[in-house]
Amino acid sequence: MEVIIMKELLEGNDKLAAENRAYFASRHILAVNLMGAPGAGKTTLISAIANELKGIRIGVIEGDISSSIDAEFLKKQGIQSAQINTCGECHLDAHVIRQGADCIDIRDSIVFIENVGNLICPAEFDLGEAVRLLAASVPEGDDKPFKYTPMFSYIDVVALTKCDLKEAVGFNSENFLKGLRTLSLVPVFEVSLKKGAQPQGVTFVAQYLLKKYQELDAI
Amino acid sequence: MEVIIMKELLEGNDKLAAENRAYFASRHILAVNLMGAPGAGKTTLISAIANELKGIRIGVIEGDISSSIDAEFLKKQGIQSAQINTCGECHLDAHVIRQGADCIDIRDSIVFIENVGNLICPAEFDLGEAVRLLAASVPEGDDKPFKYTPMFSYIDVVALTKCDLKEAVGFNSENFLKGLRTLSLVPVFEVSLKKGAQPQGVTFVAQYLLKKYQELDAI
Repeated sequence: MEVIIMKELLEGNDKLAAENRAYFASRHILAVNLMGAPGAGKTTLISAIANELKGIRIGVIEGDISSSIDAEFLKKQGIQSAQINTCGECHLDAHVIRQGADCIDIRDSIVFIENVGNLICPAEFDLGEAVRLLAASVPEGDDKPFKYTPMFSYIDVVALTKCDLKEAVGFNSENFLKGLRTLSLVPVFEVSLKKGAQPQGVTFVAQYLLKKYQELDAI
Repeated sequence: MEVIIMKELLEGNDKLAAENRAYFASRHILAVNLMGAPGAGKTTLISAIANELKGIRIGVIEGDISSSIDAEFLKKQGIQSAQINTCGECHLDAHVIRQGADCIDIRDSIVFIENVGNLICPAEFDLGEAVRLLAASVPEGDDKPFKYTPMFSYIDVVALTKCDLKEAVGFNSENFLKGLRTLSLVPVFEVSLKKGAQPQGVTFVAQYLLKKYQELDAI
């Protein structure tokens, strides 16, 4: 597996993001910037969405501080993926995304950009994506929209993951929504992808992305 | 409540960290840099440790992107705390810590510095602390030491929080330790602080810190 090493943070991120946007559009790719805290269940979510969208080609650009655990996991499922190791950098930027996209080199597809596990810094770097999807997990707590306002203001859609743990951790959905709605009116899809159990709720996330993918044709 | 706003990232962090270290030593303060991902249970851990160490004065410097939810929670327990709002910055630095310390102005105490919820950037900023405590929570997954190597290399001690969820999320302790031990030989204390249940394991974290506090006298 080829692993791309991210060496320096380039200036002019926005200009490169605009170039990425044109690159994705010209290849009929829906690019999805998937963000979330460490352990929010980002890779599991991609895997489950890919299962739902069997007729659609899926690609993944995987960002991690180190390791290629996630890309290898997805490859086993037959998902084409490029691993970017950021060497300590806390987010992906537009420059490395283009390298990652060239590496998987696909067209007519949904490409997930799995960002580094971080609820803060990724919200400052446009990657040229069409959709910003946040995986927020129930065990992180219902107060997170109050505390991480830049991220919860930045996104297009929320997958609230690990909903099977709501009772176990005393998650208050009302409080979560109260915090979110002061910042944003985006849709929230409740998802549970517990190992060995029937997946719950992921169909709606998949349908949301499929609709966005189909809208590419209308542009 | 006074809230300190962090306006700029100063250069020369290490120099300021050394000054903080001298400041804490001269006041007989054990400064504990408590780090962890969003929702790892940092504030709950401080609260539970304070309960265990009733004879010791406790202070808290609270770092958050926004809100003062955590500082207010601790104040209700009678814990003296200063809130630092980082305005989007993803970590605390030595400069704001000194402001926070001046704000609570206590001696002969254990002062927790609750860092911003982030498994990456705080590992680059020495704050002048004596102990680096990581709250790593079970729902984040057992693969985190493989993925966030700078943080897991940076710390002195780990509190593995939310251990009551081990079975529910399929957490593999062996794999967690396998990843950690390639980086570090620090002690790991398993903790469960579920609301309404008897706290488990926090005594050991409290005793560890008490020992470090008592060792200040020997210096």
